[in-house]
Amino acid sequence: MADITRITPNTLINAERVEGTSVYNPQGDKLGTIDDIMLDKVSGKAIYAIMSFGGFLGIGEKYHPIPWSALNYDESKGGYVVNLDKRMLEAAPTYDMDEDFHWTPDYGRQVDRYYNAPTYW
Amino acid sequence: MADITRITPNTLINAERVEGTSVYNPQGDKLGTIDDIMLDKVSGKAIYAIMSFGGFLGIGEKYHPIPWSALNYDESKGGYVVNLDKRMLEAAPTYDMDEDFHWTPDYGRQVDRYYNAPTYW
Repeated sequence: MADITRITPNTLINAERVEGTSVYNPQGDKLGTIDDIMLDKVSGKAIYAIMSFGGFLGIGEKYHPIPWSALNYDESKGGYVVNLDKRMLEAAPTYDMDEDFHWTPDYGRQVDRYYNAPTYW
Repeated sequence: MADITRITPNTLINAERVEGTSVYNPQGDKLGTIDDIMLDKVSGKAIYAIMSFGGFLGIGEKYHPIPWSALNYDESKGGYVVNLDKRMLEAAPTYDMDEDFHWTPDYGRQVDRYYNAPTYW
């Protein structure tokens, strides 16, 4: 779908526009980019943002699932802010981009625990 | 992002997988396809599904925003079911696919009223 829907600030955003949105730490350093969103199929609630942190030409790059509740949208930055440092992200649960990944409740709980987020599972 | 994340049934789905999911009426006729999702930027909640209903080669095709609460996921169909007939959809609020559309609270309220959905605005 072409990116033709402009939105009112502070309200709605297309899922296709979230993909590619930058993620910053509270100091304003860019940490990475949102690649996809995982939604609860029934309620439509975003549960995880799937982020990447800039591997070199995508080689060996990992996806970092982050609980949606750990993201705060910052209108002035036009992106999301997470209260995490790079070291914490580097040690976080990930999966390979080229892996045929099976998301399980156990994996989800591990992610939620790591970020100290209320668990979805 | 490649479509590499398989999901556990009944739980999570990638936003990129929702795009392209079929929409049926309760009789099982395919009405159209979800093209995008509009999310609340802060809460991450899906508010509208943006659907298209199969225009000829996309010419003159329209987007139909549908309140997310009007969609029910049907595991057996692998798609969403809406309790609407084609005539109601044909008379629904739409916008042109090639339009630089400005989504306003007034337009949102009009959509919510049409589908008798709790309003987001």
